[in-house]
Amino acid sequence: MLHRKKQKQKLKSKLGMPPGTPVFTGQQKMATVDISSICYTETDCSENTPKTIEEIIETIKKSKGVTWINFDGLHDSAVIEAVCEYLDIHKLTVEDILNVGQRPKLEDYSHYLHAVLKEISLDADGETIEQEQISFILKDNVLITFQERTGDVFDGVRKRIREGKGIVRKRKADYLLYALLDNVVDHYFVVLENYGEKLEDLETELLENPDENSLTKLHNFRRETLGLRRSVYPLREMVAGFEKLDEPLFSHINKVFARDLYDHTIKVIETVEIFRDMTSSLLDLYINSVSNKMNEVMKVLTIMTSIFIPLSFISGVYGMNFQNMPELGYKYGYFIVLGVMAVVFVGMLIYLKRRRWL
Amino acid sequence: MLHRKKQKQKLKSKLGMPPGTPVFTGQQKMATVDISSICYTETDCSENTPKTIEEIIETIKKSKGVTWINFDGLHDSAVIEAVCEYLDIHKLTVEDILNVGQRPKLEDYSHYLHAVLKEISLDADGETIEQEQISFILKDNVLITFQERTGDVFDGVRKRIREGKGIVRKRKADYLLYALLDNVVDHYFVVLENYGEKLEDLETELLENPDENSLTKLHNFRRETLGLRRSVYPLREMVAGFEKLDEPLFSHINKVFARDLYDHTIKVIETVEIFRDMTSSLLDLYINSVSNKMNEVMKVLTIMTSIFIPLSFISGVYGMNFQNMPELGYKYGYFIVLGVMAVVFVGMLIYLKRRRWL
Amino acid sequence: MLHRKKQKQKLKSKLGMPPGTPVFTGQQKMATVDISSICYTETDCSENTPKTIEEIIETIKKSKGVTWINFDGLHDSAVIEAVCEYLDIHKLTVEDILNVGQRPKLEDYSHYLHAVLKEISLDADGETIEQEQISFILKDNVLITFQERTGDVFDGVRKRIREGKGIVRKRKADYLLYALLDNVVDHYFVVLENYGEKLEDLETELLENPDENSLTKLHNFRRETLGLRRSVYPLREMVAGFEKLDEPLFSHINKVFARDLYDHTIKVIETVEIFRDMTSSLLDLYINSVSNKMNEVMKVLTIMTSIFIPLSFISGVYGMNFQNMPELGYKYGYFIVLGVMAVVFVGMLIYLKRRRWL
Amino acid sequence: MLHRKKQKQKLKSKLGMPPGTPVFTGQQKMATVDISSICYTETDCSENTPKTIEEIIETIKKSKGVTWINFDGLHDSAVIEAVCEYLDIHKLTVEDILNVGQRPKLEDYSHYLHAVLKEISLDADGETIEQEQISFILKDNVLITFQERTGDVFDGVRKRIREGKGIVRKRKADYLLYALLDNVVDHYFVVLENYGEKLEDLETELLENPDENSLTKLHNFRRETLGLRRSVYPLREMVAGFEKLDEPLFSHINKVFARDLYDHTIKVIETVEIFRDMTSSLLDLYINSVSNKMNEVMKVLTIMTSIFIPLSFISGVYGMNFQNMPELGYKYGYFIVLGVMAVVFVGMLIYLKRRRWL
Amino acid sequence: MLHRKKQKQKLKSKLGMPPGTPVFTGQQKMATVDISSICYTETDCSENTPKTIEEIIETIKKSKGVTWINFDGLHDSAVIEAVCEYLDIHKLTVEDILNVGQRPKLEDYSHYLHAVLKEISLDADGETIEQEQISFILKDNVLITFQERTGDVFDGVRKRIREGKGIVRKRKADYLLYALLDNVVDHYFVVLENYGEKLEDLETELLENPDENSLTKLHNFRRETLGLRRSVYPLREMVAGFEKLDEPLFSHINKVFARDLYDHTIKVIETVEIFRDMTSSLLDLYINSVSNKMNEVMKVLTIMTSIFIPLSFISGVYGMNFQNMPELGYKYGYFIVLGVMAVVFVGMLIYLKRRRWL
Repeated sequence: MLHRKKQKQKLKSKLGMPPGTPVFTGQQKMATVDISSICYTETDCSENTPKTIEEIIETIKKSKGVTWINFDGLHDSAVIEAVCEYLDIHKLTVEDILNVGQRPKLEDYSHYLHAVLKEISLDADGETIEQEQISFILKDNVLITFQERTGDVFDGVRKRIREGKGIVRKRKADYLLYALLDNVVDHYFVVLENYGEKLEDLETELLENPDENSLTKLHNFRRETLGLRRSVYPLREMVAGFEKLDEPLFSHINKVFARDLYDHTIKVIETVEIFRDMTSSLLDLYINSVSNKMNEVMKVLTIMTSIFIPLSFISGVYGMNFQNMPELGYKYGYFIVLGVMAVVFVGMLIYLKRRRWL
Repeated sequence: MLHRKKQKQKLKSKLGMPPGTPVFTGQQKMATVDISSICYTETDCSENTPKTIEEIIETIKKSKGVTWINFDGLHDSAVIEAVCEYLDIHKLTVEDILNVGQRPKLEDYSHYLHAVLKEISLDADGETIEQEQISFILKDNVLITFQERTGDVFDGVRKRIREGKGIVRKRKADYLLYALLDNVVDHYFVVLENYGEKLEDLETELLENPDENSLTKLHNFRRETLGLRRSVYPLREMVAGFEKLDEPLFSHINKVFARDLYDHTIKVIETVEIFRDMTSSLLDLYINSVSNKMNEVMKVLTIMTSIFIPLSFISGVYGMNFQNMPELGYKYGYFIVLGVMAVVFVGMLIYLKRRRWL
Repeated sequence: MLHRKKQKQKLKSKLGMPPGTPVFTGQQKMATVDISSICYTETDCSENTPKTIEEIIETIKKSKGVTWINFDGLHDSAVIEAVCEYLDIHKLTVEDILNVGQRPKLEDYSHYLHAVLKEISLDADGETIEQEQISFILKDNVLITFQERTGDVFDGVRKRIREGKGIVRKRKADYLLYALLDNVVDHYFVVLENYGEKLEDLETELLENPDENSLTKLHNFRRETLGLRRSVYPLREMVAGFEKLDEPLFSHINKVFARDLYDHTIKVIETVEIFRDMTSSLLDLYINSVSNKMNEVMKVLTIMTSIFIPLSFISGVYGMNFQNMPELGYKYGYFIVLGVMAVVFVGMLIYLKRRRWL
Repeated sequence: MLHRKKQKQKLKSKLGMPPGTPVFTGQQKMATVDISSICYTETDCSENTPKTIEEIIETIKKSKGVTWINFDGLHDSAVIEAVCEYLDIHKLTVEDILNVGQRPKLEDYSHYLHAVLKEISLDADGETIEQEQISFILKDNVLITFQERTGDVFDGVRKRIREGKGIVRKRKADYLLYALLDNVVDHYFVVLENYGEKLEDLETELLENPDENSLTKLHNFRRETLGLRRSVYPLREMVAGFEKLDEPLFSHINKVFARDLYDHTIKVIETVEIFRDMTSSLLDLYINSVSNKMNEVMKVLTIMTSIFIPLSFISGVYGMNFQNMPELGYKYGYFIVLGVMAVVFVGMLIYLKRRRWL
Repeated sequence: MLHRKKQKQKLKSKLGMPPGTPVFTGQQKMATVDISSICYTETDCSENTPKTIEEIIETIKKSKGVTWINFDGLHDSAVIEAVCEYLDIHKLTVEDILNVGQRPKLEDYSHYLHAVLKEISLDADGETIEQEQISFILKDNVLITFQERTGDVFDGVRKRIREGKGIVRKRKADYLLYALLDNVVDHYFVVLENYGEKLEDLETELLENPDENSLTKLHNFRRETLGLRRSVYPLREMVAGFEKLDEPLFSHINKVFARDLYDHTIKVIETVEIFRDMTSSLLDLYINSVSNKMNEVMKVLTIMTSIFIPLSFISGVYGMNFQNMPELGYKYGYFIVLGVMAVVFVGMLIYLKRRRWL
C-alpha cells in the first residue's frame, strides 16, 4: 500500500515536466548504486568497479574489445545521465531507464539500441511475483545494463566471460546482449515453474478440501497472472524486433540466436496463458465444490426432516386429549404405534437409499 | 438524465442537416468562451486574450514564431467558424470540433492536421469518469486548441513556454502539439491510478464485507470501464498516425517523441484492459461471497433442525396418551429420557463437528 | 410467426431457380409502388411522379443534371427489372434489390455502383427494431433508390435539393448518394439512442425491482442486439469501400465525406457493441438479484426455525406424561419455563443480530 | 454408435498406408453406385446412365459441349479411380473424394479444379443435421460430381439444363460448377431456416415450461451447431478461392457469380453464428428458470414453516402438563388461544404479502 | 510428481549455461539408445543397426540413395552431438533435439532443415495424453529422426520402404520426411478419436448419472485439452512452412503433399477446438445437473414439510390441556379430526400435483 502511494506522488510530481526529464519513479531498493564493468577480448578479460563518472568513461575509452558496464540501482540519476550523455543517448531513453513502469520494448535509434524488459522473481512466501525493470543500451561495442537492484540473473554470463567458456568471448557486444536476454528469459521459466507448482497445490486443495481461503488465493493468482501477462506479452514483439535489426547494430551471425530467443519467449507466453486458463478452470472447480457442499448440507436437512416429521406427526396424533380415542385403551396400542414408527423410519431410509441420498 | 435528454434533442434537430453544418452538440459548461493566445520564438514570448475574430486573425498574422490559440468553451460556434474559415479549414472538421461525441482520431487534410481526443477526469465523488473533447488544428506554425471548458491539463506546457524550459521554445508548432498531447495522455495515468485505488477499495470490501451495495458499485465500474475503453482504444490508432505523417506537417525530428507517446498510449490501454479483467474477477468474488453466505445460513438451519427434530420426536413419543405405556410409570423414566436426549444432542454435535459444519 | 412462414415459402419456391432470377422475397408493406423523381442542376430542380416504365426512362433521358429516382415498395418487380435493363444493370443486382435479406455491401460493377444497407426503426412499442432494406444504384449522373416502404429518412436531403441548401445542388449524383447514406447512418444514432434509453430503464428496473418479466425483456434485448450487429457490422466494410473507389464512379472530391461517413459507422458499431456488453452485465445483475432474493427467503426460514424449534422442544419436554416429573408439581414451574423460553428467544435474536441476519 | 465405430475401423486400417491410397471411409448409404451423365451444348442436350468405366470414358470423348457426370455413392472406388486416372487426376484428390471427412476446400491443380464441400439435411425427426460430402472435379469442359447418396440438391440445375432455361446452356462447365454450388449453398438456407424454427420452439418452451428434457435438447443444439460451424466456416475461404482463379479454369465472365456466392456463404456463416449466440442465451434462460423454480419451492417451504411453526409452538405450550397453569382453567382459555393463533396466522399472511412472497 | 521435480532440477542446472549447450532435459524412457538405419534407392534397400558414431558416419558415407537414421532414446547426448557435428548441424538445433520441451516448429538453416513436433498417445487407462518429442533433420539426401522412445508411429513407412510400396522408394529424403510427418499426424486422428470416445462416455455419464467424480474427470479433460492445444496449434504454422520452402531442400514435386498435410493439421486443430467447446458445454451440463439435483432435494423437503406441518399443528391443538375444550368431549371428535387431517393431506397432494412438484 505504502509502495503504491509513494509511486503515485512521484508520478504526480512528474506531471507537467517536459518529455525526457529523467526522474527515477521506482522505489529505492538499494543503499548505493553499484557499478561494475567487464572489458574483454577473445584473449583478455579485466574487471573493475568504477565509482565516478570519469572512471566509467575512462573504462569505455581504454577498452579494446567488448565493454560491459552494469548499474545495480537506479536512484542516482545524475551518474546515469552523465554516462548516457557521453554516449549520445536520447533523453527519452534516459527517461525510460529511470521510469521503471516501462513496457518491454526494443528501440532502434540507428546509432544505438535500447532494450527494456522485466525480470521476474517470487517473493519470500512464493505467492507474489515481483518484477524489476532491466534496461540495456548497446552502442558499438559497449553494452550498458541497468537493474533496479543487485540480482543473480547475470551471474551465469559473467562467469562464462571470466572463464572464457562458450563463444561469448569470441563475439561482440551484440552477442553479449543476446546472452544476457537469454538468461533473463530462461529465468522466467524457473519462476513460472515454481509458480505453476503453487497453482497445482491450489488445485489439489480445491479438489480435496476447499475453504473460503482458497478463493482468496485463487483471486490473488488471477491478479498475479494479469500482471504477468502485461510484462510477458510485449516480449514477443520486442524479441521479434531483433530479427529485423540490420548490421552493424546486430550482427547477422546472431540472428539464429534471436530466433531461438523468440521461441523461448513464445513458450513463456504460452505458459502464462495456460496459467490463465487453469485459474479460470479452478474457479469453476471452486464454485462447484461450494455448490456440492451446499447440496450435502441440504441433503442432511432433508433426510432429518423427512424421517422425523412423519414420526412426530404420529406421536402428535396420540398426544391428543380426545375422550374417545379407542386406540389409547388397547393393551398393546403403544407398542403397535412404536412398531408403525419403526416401519415408517425404515421405509424412509429405504426410499432415501434408492434416491441415492444416503 | 437531464443531460442525456438535452443531448438527444440536439442530435434530432441536427438530423437532416447538410453534412458539415457546425452545431455544438454538447452541454454548455462555461458562461463565456475564453480565448487565449501565446506567440513565441526561441527568444520571445507574448500572451494576450483576443476577444473578437479580428483580434484573433490579427494575432496570427503578426506572429513571427509559433502561434498557439486556445478556446475554452465551444458554444460560440460563430467565432470558431470564422477562425476556421480564415485558416481554410474544411467544414467537416469544424463540425467535428463542435460535435463533442467524436472518437479520437487524427486526420491529415494535407494542408493542415486535425486531431481529436478525450480528456478524462474524475468527478467530485471520484466514482464517475468525466470525458471532455479536446480538438487540435495544426496548420503551418499555428496551433489552435479547443476545449469544452477551462482545465489545467495544458498548464504545464504553458509554464514551460513562459519560462523557456525544455526544448519547446526551440521547436515549431508540431512539437507544441506533441507536448500538449503528451500532457493529456500523462493526465490519463493520474486519473486511472485514482480510479484503480477505488477499485482496490472495492476489492477489499468484497473480500471482507460484501453487501448488495457492492454489486451496484461493481456494475457502475463496469459501465465506466466500458465508456473508458471506447475513448481509449482509438487513441492507439490515432497516435500511431503521427508516425506515418510526412514533412512538412510533422517534422521527422519529432518522430521519436511520437513513438514515446505511442508507448504511453499502449500503457493506458493495458491499464483499462486490466480494470476490465479485474471487474470481472471481482464479480466472481461477489457471486461467491453471496453463495458462501447462503451456505452459512443453510448450515445454521440444518444444524438447528438436525439437533432439535430428533429430540422433539422423543418428547412427542412420551407425550402420547396411551393407557399402557410402561416407561411412564418408571420412577426415573423422565430422567432416563432426559439423559437419552442429552446423548443424542452431544452425538449430533460430534457428528456435525466431524463434517466440519461447526 | 406468420411473417416468418411466408418468407420461407418464398425462399423455397426460389430454390432451384437460375441465379439472377428477380423474385421479391419480403413482405409487401405498401399497397402500390410509389415512384418519384427529382432532376436538378445547380440552377434548376424539377420533380414528378412517373407511373410507367416509359415515363421513368423519359425522365432519365431528358434530365440535364442529376437524376434521382426513388422507388417506395419493391413488389412490382416488372417495373424495376425494366428500368434496370434500360440502365444495363446486371441480373444479380436486380435479384439483390428484390431479395430483401441482403447483407450491407458495396459492389463496383465498373460501369455502375450498387450499394445495399438496412434502415432501422423502432416499432410502435419501442422494443423491437425493424429493419428495411435500402438499395442504391449509381450510374453516371443517375441515382436510383429502392425502399421497402415510404419512409422519412430521405426527406432532409429532398428538402435541401428543393431549397438549394448546402452544396448538394453543386455536386453530382455521387455526392447525392453520399448525402443519402449519411442520412441513413445518422438515423441509426436516433434509433440507437432511443433503444439505449429502454436499456437504461431496464437497468433501473433490474437494480430496483426485478421480476421474471425482466428476464424475458433482457432476453429480447439480446436477440435484437444480435440482429442489429448483423446489419451493422458489414456497414464498416461497405463504407470503407467508398474510400477505395476510383473516378469517374465516385469523385475524389467526395472522399473526405466518405471518411466522415466511415467515422460515423464506427461509432454506430461501437454503440451496438456497448449494448451487447451492457446486456451481459445486466444479466449478471439479474442473476445476482435472484440469488439475493433467495438468500432473503432462506434467512427468514432459518430465523423462524432457529427461534421456534428449540422453544417447541422445551414445551414438548413438559408435555411428556411421565408420572414422576418433579418440575410439573412446582408452583411456579410453568412460569419458570415460560421465562426460560423468553431467554432462549431473546438469546437467539441477539445471536442472529450479531450474524447480521436481522 | 455403430456408425462411429465402423468409421474408426476404416481409419485404423488406413493408418500406415501410403498417402494417396484411395479408400472409402464413409458408411455405404446406397446399394449400388448410380452414375448419370448429361452432355449439352447451347442447342443439344443428351442424357444417359453409363454402367462401366468404358461407357463413361466414351461419353466424355464423344461429347461436343459440356459433359457432366454424376456419381451417387462412393463405395465402388475402382470405377472412380479409373475415371480419375483417365482424366489425369492426382491420387491425393481421389483419396479426398473417397475419404468423406474432408473440410470444404478448393484446390487448383492447374490442369483441373477440385472442390469439396458438405451438403446438409435434417434427419427424419428434424433434430439432427446430417452432412454428406459432395466433391467436384472440373477439367476443361468436363465436370464430375461425387455424392454419398442420391439427393435432390442438383435437380433444379438438371431441369434447367433439360429445359434450356437461364444461361446454363450458353456457358461452359465452369458456370455449371457455379450453378451447382449455388444450389448447395441455397439448400443450406432452407435447412438452417427449419433448424432455426426448432430453436425458436425450444425458446418458447424454455420461456414457458422448461423441464430437464429442455436441457438435453439444448445440449444437442450446441453439439449440432458446433458440427455445423466446422462445415460452414471453411466455406468462406473456399468460395473466396473462386475469385482468385485464373482463366482458363474459371472464366472471368463468371467472377461476378462467384462474388454473389461468396455473399450467400457469409450469410450462412452469420446464421450459424447467430444460432451459437442464441443457444448460449437460451442456456442462460434455462439456468435462470431453474433458479426461479427453486426460489418458488423455497418460498412455499418458508411460507409453510413461518406460518405453522409459531402456531405449533403455542399449542405446544398449552400441551405442557404443569399442575399450575392458570390459563388452562379459564373458561374461554381455549377460545382465546385459538383467537391468538388466528391473529398470528393473519399477521404472518400480511407480513408475507408485504414482502411479495404471496 | 517425481517426474516434474526431476525435470525442474535439469532446468535449473541448465540455467546460466551458454546457449546451445546440449543437455537432455526429459525423462530417460529407455535403457539404451537404439539406432537403426535404412538406406534405399529405387531398386535397393538395406538396413542395419549401427552401434558407434563411426558406424553411423560410415553408413551415411556409403549410401547411394536415401539414408534414414533413426534414434530411439535421447539420453546419450554424446553420440547425437557427434553425428550432428559431422553433418555440420548448428548447436542450437542439437540443444532443441535434446531439450524435449520444444514447441512444434520448422527451421530452415539453408543447408539443412530442422523439424520438431509432438507425437501423442494415450496412457494405459486412456485418460491421460502422453506427448513425446520427435525431431527431424533433413540434409541433402539424409534424414535423421530422433524419438524419446521406441514407438510404432514409423512402422508403416518402414514397411513400405522394405516392400517398395507406394512412391517412397522413387522419391528423395524430402518425400520420406513428408511421409513420416504424415504418419505422425494421422496418428493424431486415432488418438483424438479414442479420446473423443472417452469424452462421449463422460457426456453420457453426465446426462444420466453425474457424481462428484465426473467433475474431477471433466477437470482433467480440460487440462489435457489445454496441453493438447499447446502442441497442436503451432503445427499449423510449422506445416504451412513446408509450402514456403525452396528447392533443393524440399522438392516442388512434394508441395502438393505438403498442402494435403496442412489440411490434415487443420482438421486436428479443429477437433481439439471441438473438444474444448465440448468440455465447456459439459461443464454447463454438470452444473445444471447439480442444480437440478438440489431442486429435487428441496422439493422433497418442501413436500414433506408442507404436508406434515399443518397436520402436526392440528394434532398439537387437540393436545392442549385446557379444561374447557368442547371438541374433546364429542363422541366422534377424534374421528372427525382424523378426517380433517385426511382432507388436508389430500388437499396438499392435489396442490403439489398441480404445481408439478409431484
